[in-house]
Amino acid sequence: MKVVCFGEVMLRLNPPGYERFAQTSSLVYNIGGAEANVAVSTSNYGIESSFVTRLPAHEIGTSVINMLRRYGVDTSQIIRGGSRVGIYYLEKGASQRSSKVIYDRANSAIAQASASDFNWERIFEGADWFHFTGITPALSDGAALCCLEACRAAKSAGIKISCDLNYRKNLWSPEKAGQVMGELMKYVDLCIANEEDADMVFGIKAENTDVDRGIVSHDAYRSVAAQLAERFGCEKIAITLRISISANDNDWAGMLYDSKTDEYYFSPTYNIHIVDRVGGGDSFGGGLIYALLSDKDNTYAINFAVAASALKHTIEGDFNLVSIAEVESLMSGSGSGRVQR
Amino acid sequence: MKVVCFGEVMLRLNPPGYERFAQTSSLVYNIGGAEANVAVSTSNYGIESSFVTRLPAHEIGTSVINMLRRYGVDTSQIIRGGSRVGIYYLEKGASQRSSKVIYDRANSAIAQASASDFNWERIFEGADWFHFTGITPALSDGAALCCLEACRAAKSAGIKISCDLNYRKNLWSPEKAGQVMGELMKYVDLCIANEEDADMVFGIKAENTDVDRGIVSHDAYRSVAAQLAERFGCEKIAITLRISISANDNDWAGMLYDSKTDEYYFSPTYNIHIVDRVGGGDSFGGGLIYALLSDKDNTYAINFAVAASALKHTIEGDFNLVSIAEVESLMSGSGSGRVQR
Amino acid sequence: MKVVCFGEVMLRLNPPGYERFAQTSSLVYNIGGAEANVAVSTSNYGIESSFVTRLPAHEIGTSVINMLRRYGVDTSQIIRGGSRVGIYYLEKGASQRSSKVIYDRANSAIAQASASDFNWERIFEGADWFHFTGITPALSDGAALCCLEACRAAKSAGIKISCDLNYRKNLWSPEKAGQVMGELMKYVDLCIANEEDADMVFGIKAENTDVDRGIVSHDAYRSVAAQLAERFGCEKIAITLRISISANDNDWAGMLYDSKTDEYYFSPTYNIHIVDRVGGGDSFGGGLIYALLSDKDNTYAINFAVAASALKHTIEGDFNLVSIAEVESLMSGSGSGRVQR
Amino acid sequence: MKVVCFGEVMLRLNPPGYERFAQTSSLVYNIGGAEANVAVSTSNYGIESSFVTRLPAHEIGTSVINMLRRYGVDTSQIIRGGSRVGIYYLEKGASQRSSKVIYDRANSAIAQASASDFNWERIFEGADWFHFTGITPALSDGAALCCLEACRAAKSAGIKISCDLNYRKNLWSPEKAGQVMGELMKYVDLCIANEEDADMVFGIKAENTDVDRGIVSHDAYRSVAAQLAERFGCEKIAITLRISISANDNDWAGMLYDSKTDEYYFSPTYNIHIVDRVGGGDSFGGGLIYALLSDKDNTYAINFAVAASALKHTIEGDFNLVSIAEVESLMSGSGSGRVQR
Amino acid sequence: MKVVCFGEVMLRLNPPGYERFAQTSSLVYNIGGAEANVAVSTSNYGIESSFVTRLPAHEIGTSVINMLRRYGVDTSQIIRGGSRVGIYYLEKGASQRSSKVIYDRANSAIAQASASDFNWERIFEGADWFHFTGITPALSDGAALCCLEACRAAKSAGIKISCDLNYRKNLWSPEKAGQVMGELMKYVDLCIANEEDADMVFGIKAENTDVDRGIVSHDAYRSVAAQLAERFGCEKIAITLRISISANDNDWAGMLYDSKTDEYYFSPTYNIHIVDRVGGGDSFGGGLIYALLSDKDNTYAINFAVAASALKHTIEGDFNLVSIAEVESLMSGSGSGRVQR
Amino acid sequence: MKVVCFGEVMLRLNPPGYERFAQTSSLVYNIGGAEANVAVSTSNYGIESSFVTRLPAHEIGTSVINMLRRYGVDTSQIIRGGSRVGIYYLEKGASQRSSKVIYDRANSAIAQASASDFNWERIFEGADWFHFTGITPALSDGAALCCLEACRAAKSAGIKISCDLNYRKNLWSPEKAGQVMGELMKYVDLCIANEEDADMVFGIKAENTDVDRGIVSHDAYRSVAAQLAERFGCEKIAITLRISISANDNDWAGMLYDSKTDEYYFSPTYNIHIVDRVGGGDSFGGGLIYALLSDKDNTYAINFAVAASALKHTIEGDFNLVSIAEVESLMSGSGSGRVQR
Repeated sequence: MKVVCFGEVMLRLNPPGYERFAQTSSLVYNIGGAEANVAVSTSNYGIESSFVTRLPAHEIGTSVINMLRRYGVDTSQIIRGGSRVGIYYLEKGASQRSSKVIYDRANSAIAQASASDFNWERIFEGADWFHFTGITPALSDGAALCCLEACRAAKSAGIKISCDLNYRKNLWSPEKAGQVMGELMKYVDLCIANEEDADMVFGIKAENTDVDRGIVSHDAYRSVAAQLAERFGCEKIAITLRISISANDNDWAGMLYDSKTDEYYFSPTYNIHIVDRVGGGDSFGGGLIYALLSDKDNTYAINFAVAASALKHTIEGDFNLVSIAEVESLMSGSGSGRVQR
Repeated sequence: MKVVCFGEVMLRLNPPGYERFAQTSSLVYNIGGAEANVAVSTSNYGIESSFVTRLPAHEIGTSVINMLRRYGVDTSQIIRGGSRVGIYYLEKGASQRSSKVIYDRANSAIAQASASDFNWERIFEGADWFHFTGITPALSDGAALCCLEACRAAKSAGIKISCDLNYRKNLWSPEKAGQVMGELMKYVDLCIANEEDADMVFGIKAENTDVDRGIVSHDAYRSVAAQLAERFGCEKIAITLRISISANDNDWAGMLYDSKTDEYYFSPTYNIHIVDRVGGGDSFGGGLIYALLSDKDNTYAINFAVAASALKHTIEGDFNLVSIAEVESLMSGSGSGRVQR
Repeated sequence: MKVVCFGEVMLRLNPPGYERFAQTSSLVYNIGGAEANVAVSTSNYGIESSFVTRLPAHEIGTSVINMLRRYGVDTSQIIRGGSRVGIYYLEKGASQRSSKVIYDRANSAIAQASASDFNWERIFEGADWFHFTGITPALSDGAALCCLEACRAAKSAGIKISCDLNYRKNLWSPEKAGQVMGELMKYVDLCIANEEDADMVFGIKAENTDVDRGIVSHDAYRSVAAQLAERFGCEKIAITLRISISANDNDWAGMLYDSKTDEYYFSPTYNIHIVDRVGGGDSFGGGLIYALLSDKDNTYAINFAVAASALKHTIEGDFNLVSIAEVESLMSGSGSGRVQR
Repeated sequence: MKVVCFGEVMLRLNPPGYERFAQTSSLVYNIGGAEANVAVSTSNYGIESSFVTRLPAHEIGTSVINMLRRYGVDTSQIIRGGSRVGIYYLEKGASQRSSKVIYDRANSAIAQASASDFNWERIFEGADWFHFTGITPALSDGAALCCLEACRAAKSAGIKISCDLNYRKNLWSPEKAGQVMGELMKYVDLCIANEEDADMVFGIKAENTDVDRGIVSHDAYRSVAAQLAERFGCEKIAITLRISISANDNDWAGMLYDSKTDEYYFSPTYNIHIVDRVGGGDSFGGGLIYALLSDKDNTYAINFAVAASALKHTIEGDFNLVSIAEVESLMSGSGSGRVQR
Repeated sequence: MKVVCFGEVMLRLNPPGYERFAQTSSLVYNIGGAEANVAVSTSNYGIESSFVTRLPAHEIGTSVINMLRRYGVDTSQIIRGGSRVGIYYLEKGASQRSSKVIYDRANSAIAQASASDFNWERIFEGADWFHFTGITPALSDGAALCCLEACRAAKSAGIKISCDLNYRKNLWSPEKAGQVMGELMKYVDLCIANEEDADMVFGIKAENTDVDRGIVSHDAYRSVAAQLAERFGCEKIAITLRISISANDNDWAGMLYDSKTDEYYFSPTYNIHIVDRVGGGDSFGGGLIYALLSDKDNTYAINFAVAASALKHTIEGDFNLVSIAEVESLMSGSGSGRVQR
Repeated sequence: MKVVCFGEVMLRLNPPGYERFAQTSSLVYNIGGAEANVAVSTSNYGIESSFVTRLPAHEIGTSVINMLRRYGVDTSQIIRGGSRVGIYYLEKGASQRSSKVIYDRANSAIAQASASDFNWERIFEGADWFHFTGITPALSDGAALCCLEACRAAKSAGIKISCDLNYRKNLWSPEKAGQVMGELMKYVDLCIANEEDADMVFGIKAENTDVDRGIVSHDAYRSVAAQLAERFGCEKIAITLRISISANDNDWAGMLYDSKTDEYYFSPTYNIHIVDRVGGGDSFGGGLIYALLSDKDNTYAINFAVAASALKHTIEGDFNLVSIAEVESLMSGSGSGRVQR
């Protein structure tokens, strides 16, 4: 089994612990990005995982490749070129203070990629699954075109396609997002979203939902999922359900909708004491792809994805460094955190 | 607008994380002090803020000035002299284990200052507000005399004066505190206290209050505030309300009493998961001064002060490194800690 | 008063903070071990505490001795020999993710010790108490024989003997454990256990107990204690009661059974927000030995032991670096974590 | 006395110690830039020093301002705008391995500045000296225009102007540099260069010089200085003389040419064991400006500048954190590094 | 092109900087081993490099694989099994104080490997070169047998074989080494040694050599090389020449002997200021294999190997993280360490 | 054998690496002091070593005791009392930049000690050697009186007395030093000095000596030693010979004069590349005391002392953490720093 992920991997630069930008004297040197995070997840579960992007030929670019290789990701399809690696600065929040992300990703190597940079036929040789998110086409018209060509190539090669909507307001307007993503969604078999994404990108609203007040009804999620599936013909829709109690404490759950059977699968809810929440959604996607690619049933799939991503919240960095055994242990109810000797 | 703060700034030396003194091999090199903390707060809110003290001419003294300048505090009125910077060693508590502070501040440069060291007329040029706390006069008779002269000069220049009672039992007895502070309070327009301070310094007791048991009635605070205002003729009295559940979790609120209208303003209560609680009270004072100096109404003032100081509890170090926008966002109800991108 | 502890002290190597093995680039260099942890505890309470083991003559062995000496433990009875110090790698868990311990202790210097290495008569000169745990005889037949000879020597010298059952499934089978420990228990005056230990080693089961579900009845503990006392003739049985809510939050309590009076003493329960839970049980033993050796009554003893070990959970490393005053302050109800100045 | 410096300040991100990009997991968070480095130097010598640039309004931009303020630099004339802070990644070399700098400065806030962003008349109020380098006009046509307007305004205000040629081949071609710098040099009173700069920008060659082989004749420097002064009518020309023995050991000296008297002043040569060589040239400029602005004679000036910059090589970071007393102590011959108590 | 390396990779645990074991509170978590170091070198030069060993299935074993993958080494042929990863503790020396290595490698997973663990035919598919060192057969009889079978399989597959004698007195006696290595050397095409190795293992002595006094004649090296080639029929013999001036400063050179032409090639000598000398010899081997496998001539090969390993001495850790371009730049004379921008 | 050392132990707070006070954000938490450093040295060589001082009863005081115990020093004779631990801030120099020490030791617990605090008869039970330095009597009149009583008690108990003159100009004037030390020197058997000390304290000048210019003649040292021995009747005089080339490189040697035989013993000179030079002189004293107490001859004694202190310069912190074997290895000529495996 082989998964191909396409997108941007950025430097992730954050002060240690809870330090603010204004006071810090050092930064953790790490990487992250929605699709790279998924590739690390699936690699971790033993699936051959290739991450495709464009990175500068200089040593900073190489160090990014090193950090991907460390977790077993195949980096042989990464194109070297361009002059800069995109960056996101991250400040970890606590209690009532929110985490803060400042992006410096314009003009990155991948944002300046053109369609001719990638030979998708060769990239997809032996692949079973293609994953991208709504961030990649938002980077630039060139990157959007790359996505479109990748989708076409994947579809004609009979490869399953998943997309996490991941709307980013700093990158494009809802109008442009709706137009571009609308085109791409036609190729998507598994769509991952939260109700904000669906609303911002496609104007699909869930009733009775108020994220800030922490009250979300199951019916609302069912409504969003059904609308998404209907409009774009997706086979499955997965939605993450996050209740932010504070920057330290979140409730976390997920739902999977199977349009073929019109069934809804809700996971248990985990009360998480957070170590690092960035990459939580991506680890959900990674878990889901693993489960579905391994022919697990829908109940297992949503429960695995949610348990995996609950564990991600306890791990420093964007990457979900957990094993199948650890996820399944949590799925089976061992969440009491007793020491494993 | 310009605020002048007068007092001692110490080295703040603490082991990293939750390490105890007995086991650590390094100390975070930082500074703090009740009045310096207020100066950093008001500077952060865009108010010109001058911190007045006395520091040795050597490189340790200079490094303290550097750390103040970093956050925009005007240090041009600091006198250089004396031989040592006061120190406080801090060990962060957790759960049932209390934080521990060990002072080594005797004979610091400011404790050995004499009245002739400071030319208050020149210091107060262009100033609108003068702030000090009950710690400064407790340092030495010389420092107390400096406070008195500062109050006189401020009063005759028509500058508003605020004082945080801040009783420190290691520095002086209740009797001496009562006598010295009683004299100084005659000049104070805004008095900041908690019910312990008022009791220890002036014997003003609140009924129905038991801090250790975590039960405090609003009436008790009203009673303390009214007595303070009446005895010293202060325009406004602000009281902080802390319930310590554990070293990690506190409830935090505040009250403002306006003696002119005899109105009481209670803030909402925040349940805080603590990163660093030292300087919490000072950040309350800083927020209050900003709000009152900016002609905000009493409701805004107490709510701003409490929200600002709630955020302080999530920030490493004595200083409250938050922006007006962040405080106002929390005031408006966004305390769920969602990532800001 | 003098306590002698005998067992293995290992290197304790853990990534900083919540980092996983898979991602870390540094390890905290520290030591730990069930009996060494007790020796540090009793030393901390002012009791002369000698730790007996075997360590290689090289610099890593010496560094271990240094870390013991730092906390006042007498290391003059440690034998130098063998070629390696045992190691345990520790990864701190969070929320639903468990802490993980990987042992690399086979063939350590102490596991390769033989009975002739230790002259127990000389070691016990001036001693009042001997402590070991079920880990030491599990290391090797040689180590088990050392324990047996130590018990005999202690008994004939009129020294009190305590043993923490501490069953470790990686070291031996329940069958072998039952046989070896059954022999040693005949010498033991104070037995420390949890209900899992008693079950695994001796097949002594408590009714109505389900650790994973967090429901434990007091009667169950009474039952286990009475059975242990009866079978081996121990004077006192102490049992720790842990409810794991998550890797961050545990409830913690203890029970002491006095077979002479057939009385049971239950401590209060502490809700602990955990900094480091390894060594929690050992700090319970250390507190208990201090209290009983100091002729405190049973109520004080169990309350001291539980308060001491509650505080241990807030301290980095295996060692419980607290003073009597701190423990007694918590016993007297000051668990609100207010700053001590 | 007041100095105004104009240019770009970048984030300086370097792995700790001698780690390479390929292996590091953290970066020191610091700042640097040719003109900011000069401003810190002159501020350190007690001269009011204003640094003018354009920085984004976000928290990363603010943190840069904080780091400038820390060393007393006046940041009140910094314009907030644009979206990114330029970055340079730095890897420290050792022995035969060179230090490596990777720039990521395109599209920084200052590179996107336009002439209308700065009101030079107001900026130069009270100023005595204006300093910029050949890097600033190389950033963009807009930045070059800002330089030209600044020079005009400075000249008409009777302010001395200094320029460090600082040719950067990544930023522009020799041709463009020659053309733009040729225009700006007409306003320059003090020109700082090394013989490579003069050659690359203006084609002014020194004979008998071979930097790679470490053989440089004094006559060569005289020749370059005289040609520069003659072509542009500069009052003084300063040239730094570096012999790289290895990445750890350099010889360092300087020369000052006074065109009015046609005299050459050569400093002593220092054999430096390097801690951090970046910013060495800027600290030479800072020392020179301090000395000339303070009306020191040419001998003092070149000796101060070279001693100051020799000390810079022993200090981590771009900034030269030394006092006048320390520089003068070295000038007077105390370079043996004995402990100062 | 593909290189296969076989041997042990250990945890490399060293205190930061120049700290001694006796005083440190942390260890750098890294890996190293003679053959793994070669694999990282050749991988770095763009050659497909597979490292073969046996590692435990637990997380420490996995973290070792992660660190190998980071630098592009193919880890797919690593067998999982056994219970422990070998360790070497390293303390960095300075000036007159030697670096100190303490091994804890007995009973590691690879030392307990048996011949049946490795399918050499499959491992060598597509391979062009096989490298091992005298350390691997010294680990255990099983490991020695693995080496022998690997050599046979490599020889019958027409793969070039290199061996670094690397005598380790802690692992075996000269007698046993001579016997086992004598058998293996029959298969070796390229033998790497220093004159101590040849003496200890095979009693081949060089005249006029006194390592401790730093006086080594070229004739001595010629003599050793010729004897080695003659006795075992090796095609080429490479010898490293190190003069230890102090723990900080070494002179470093090398010699290559081509038995077919009976020609000797001596490299230039580098005066190295050391950052980390461990792995220096392995990086020489890695450079040599790269050059010979790439059909470079003997002069290039020895010069590349020595320049590469000179650079290794400036890099933290066992691994030589340099590029071909960096090595060739040094070969061409650019060793002055000027900043590369 | 047992050595008793009496004096002050201070906190030693230094920024990591080469950072300056002005820029650092952390301090290494360590201790040091002339006599404590000697006690650690002799303890390290296996001699029972008791350090006598006065330290506050609080946790900072306890942490100091912990750091002494770590290296085997007997701390049972330390008196608890007073309120502060003296501090010295240390900034490490490099190349032409000197190390800088800022003392904050006034009013430390030991400076406020009185003669009645110490029962010297009991302290000296079983002791063979008493060591103090000229720093202790300089702390205060009380401390000087303690020294005098200690000397008297030691003399009447037949214990050898050594004193390192160690003149500190910040603590007292040459006049007062001469008077107080003159009285104490009457009891001293072994006097340690450098020619500056002898000059400053007793006006004993060596001819032909110019420390700043690095030219010192052997005759000069002979002259100083003979004068010291003659004036005070000391048995032996030891003088350290340091040539500071830079803050990184020193030459280091020593001389021992035996007044009974009127023989002079000069050690070899070591060229040291420095890691940390503070405590170098104390480690010389520690080595000398070890050798003389162990009845080594004068040649061995001075060579051991100088080799030991040469090694100290390669070790972080005040303490000389070396073994007899390491010192003797250097004495025997193994200073080439080759890796010890």
